[in-house]
Amino acid sequence: MSVMIRPTPISGFPEFLPAEQILFGKILATIRQSFELYGFAPIETPAVERKDVLTSKGGNEREIYALSRLAAAPGENPDTDLALHFDLTVPLARYVAMYKDKLAFPFRRYQIQKVWRGERAQSGRYREFYQCDIDVIGKGDLSLLTDAEIPSIIYQIFHHMRIGPFVIRVNNRKILQGYFHHLGIPTAHQVDVMRLVDKLEKIGTRQLTAELMAHMGLTESTAGHVIAFLDHRVSNDEMLAHLRSLTHINDRFAEGVRELEIVVEGLRTLNVPEDAFRIDLGIARGLDYYTGTVYETILVDYPGIGSICSGGRYDDLASFFTEEQLPGVGISIGLTRLVPRLIEAGILKVGSATTAPVLVTSLEESRTREYLRIGTMLREAGVPTEVYFEKARLGEQLRYAHTKGFTLAIIAGERELAHASVKVKNLRTGDESTHVLHDLPQTVEEILRASA
Amino acid sequence: MSVMIRPTPISGFPEFLPAEQILFGKILATIRQSFELYGFAPIETPAVERKDVLTSKGGNEREIYALSRLAAAPGENPDTDLALHFDLTVPLARYVAMYKDKLAFPFRRYQIQKVWRGERAQSGRYREFYQCDIDVIGKGDLSLLTDAEIPSIIYQIFHHMRIGPFVIRVNNRKILQGYFHHLGIPTAHQVDVMRLVDKLEKIGTRQLTAELMAHMGLTESTAGHVIAFLDHRVSNDEMLAHLRSLTHINDRFAEGVRELEIVVEGLRTLNVPEDAFRIDLGIARGLDYYTGTVYETILVDYPGIGSICSGGRYDDLASFFTEEQLPGVGISIGLTRLVPRLIEAGILKVGSATTAPVLVTSLEESRTREYLRIGTMLREAGVPTEVYFEKARLGEQLRYAHTKGFTLAIIAGERELAHASVKVKNLRTGDESTHVLHDLPQTVEEILRASA
Repeated sequence: MSVMIRPTPISGFPEFLPAEQILFGKILATIRQSFELYGFAPIETPAVERKDVLTSKGGNEREIYALSRLAAAPGENPDTDLALHFDLTVPLARYVAMYKDKLAFPFRRYQIQKVWRGERAQSGRYREFYQCDIDVIGKGDLSLLTDAEIPSIIYQIFHHMRIGPFVIRVNNRKILQGYFHHLGIPTAHQVDVMRLVDKLEKIGTRQLTAELMAHMGLTESTAGHVIAFLDHRVSNDEMLAHLRSLTHINDRFAEGVRELEIVVEGLRTLNVPEDAFRIDLGIARGLDYYTGTVYETILVDYPGIGSICSGGRYDDLASFFTEEQLPGVGISIGLTRLVPRLIEAGILKVGSATTAPVLVTSLEESRTREYLRIGTMLREAGVPTEVYFEKARLGEQLRYAHTKGFTLAIIAGERELAHASVKVKNLRTGDESTHVLHDLPQTVEEILRASA
Repeated sequence: MSVMIRPTPISGFPEFLPAEQILFGKILATIRQSFELYGFAPIETPAVERKDVLTSKGGNEREIYALSRLAAAPGENPDTDLALHFDLTVPLARYVAMYKDKLAFPFRRYQIQKVWRGERAQSGRYREFYQCDIDVIGKGDLSLLTDAEIPSIIYQIFHHMRIGPFVIRVNNRKILQGYFHHLGIPTAHQVDVMRLVDKLEKIGTRQLTAELMAHMGLTESTAGHVIAFLDHRVSNDEMLAHLRSLTHINDRFAEGVRELEIVVEGLRTLNVPEDAFRIDLGIARGLDYYTGTVYETILVDYPGIGSICSGGRYDDLASFFTEEQLPGVGISIGLTRLVPRLIEAGILKVGSATTAPVLVTSLEESRTREYLRIGTMLREAGVPTEVYFEKARLGEQLRYAHTKGFTLAIIAGERELAHASVKVKNLRTGDESTHVLHDLPQTVEEILRASA
């Protein structure tokens, strides 16, 4: 009758089956809980902003999705001045500027939302993905301890997620700026040098030297100094000693070192273990708006995944929207990219496809009321429970239970119900035992605890 | 230097300040938890679908936002074949059809996501809003008990949200179809009659009679019968007796009554109190695809808010995407519309603007480490805590604490720290007491518990 539409995946717009989605949701909940443990308040901005807001900072217009209505009444313009946000930083800047008189500063916010980028979809590139951001925004000032607190929260999150060993790399762009100035690299070139320097790990020393000479006009000797300085890999204390020995070169450099020392001391006071953070002069974060501390986070055993969490300090969040100086520090976890890779690497395990551990099966149609009541009884005790309603043999119901990944099946035929009892089948072990119906919630809780 | 952009709200795209957002998040969490207690698995589909998928069911094209890239390379087409979804039912249909071989049926899913509709923004009309949907989808068949379980979950949610007395109105469209057929209203007109009937409460008996006569060609007598039948307001048992007395009129009617009886019995077995649901023949749900049970939910004290949660049974979820028969039952809470009205009505109270009850103040710059450690100590005991880092007098810090809505402030100067003690100030009562630092987490938990 009607034409069938064959639904197919849309490239760059990921979608999970229920078991993966449940896992993803648990990770989101962990992140949310950690942010809240430190008193960060959630905010949520609309998915859209005005086009002029989004392009204020020079967002890439080819990557921004604009909205227009699919149809319009005659004479009506279907276009809008709206487009989907491509990150959560521009919306934050707009939000803080707009409500600055209603917010208390330092403003500590987290924001977990999807963002959209109309990129050519390549492997691993998403057009729709989650960002999990925290930022602290000051009015006029913002303590450098914030630069230590933010990565300490990230440490807690990844530690609790059990994603294996990871290192938060820390640097301060003032150190790089001071050092580049000392080498005679003009200020106007520094951002480009930093952008190249960010590629050190990817392209290696030799090619970076060549590129610094070709594109930045450095001499081979200066390029060598730059790389030797950036690629210096020693312990945090050795690095601080090394940097301290160079603070005479200029004030900018010395300021960066002083800031970095405060951040390192703060990380230690906040119980971040020494092997979980590393001063790394080689990281610079390409973006122009970071002005001091910068971070990247890598998985020790999977460096190929790249940075799983990045951010830094910026002097002025919302210069396009307000005259007020609003310095901030923030960090962002790119969860959509991260989770599938952690699953692939076997670090995260996809579990069951149901949120309930218990399935109450239906054996006798005349006993449906009892099955419903067993479900209610378990739920009232806080045990998530599904009751199977459909007409199906027990074998089919147990297959359903296995497919979805329930832990326990409750089985009650005439015989059991006549004695006010039920059978509990552990679907992981195959064990079956009979229990008094009255005590079922307690019994189930015990078995679940034991099998966890 | 740069041109300032004055950020302003975008009509129809709501956005909360932190305190409201925290409240909204708590409600979302309650809903999510209730859905999971019944074993519903979360799914999340992309914000976009292909245009042909979205318009397959005849979605209103003027309300659909299509995506195009803001700019394109020369010769490149900035348009896409994508548009933002306007509900979660079409995406569910596409999802189930696409993954039907990987899902176990009955497929129980919940989905909490924003949807977008490019409507003219009127008061209370949103262009971006959350829907919280649950649906159970069967393959071929689906037990009628599902039609009872779904509203029983909704009962639990609203009960726990403490939104005051509410009534879930239940009806079955087969009863209406059978009755209309009995009155000689042709099948082709029934959907339109139902659409008019849905307005009964809004426009009243007299105008509805006039409209049924004018638009549907009913005689005054038939229109009178229709309205008398629909506006019959008695207890559930009286209604069932009344309906049973009419089952001779035709099979369709009798089938609807039988289904309704099963649903009512299921609701009772699932402990939904008698005053929380009501058979109401006057509700029909305008949408064409409901085929049996239908629901609406109203707040007894605020009927003007309209239905806060609606849904029903449909014979075939995904007829545009698959030949397979996929019957389902679902319900949707329109939370974005609901929450601000519940706040306005004083039913929901906006609380504090921080997720942490405790603020550790900073009195002595030289003691910062201690303040950080107090924060860590409390967090490790599970107490969400913010440490104030900025240089500010205590008075200013306490004003900040009041503005954000902290419950307790921890205050420790040289004197307290010298005795390994701290002061705890209850910001709600003004009470201040001194405690041993070592026992602080326990002390704080006790005070928080007492002041909750």
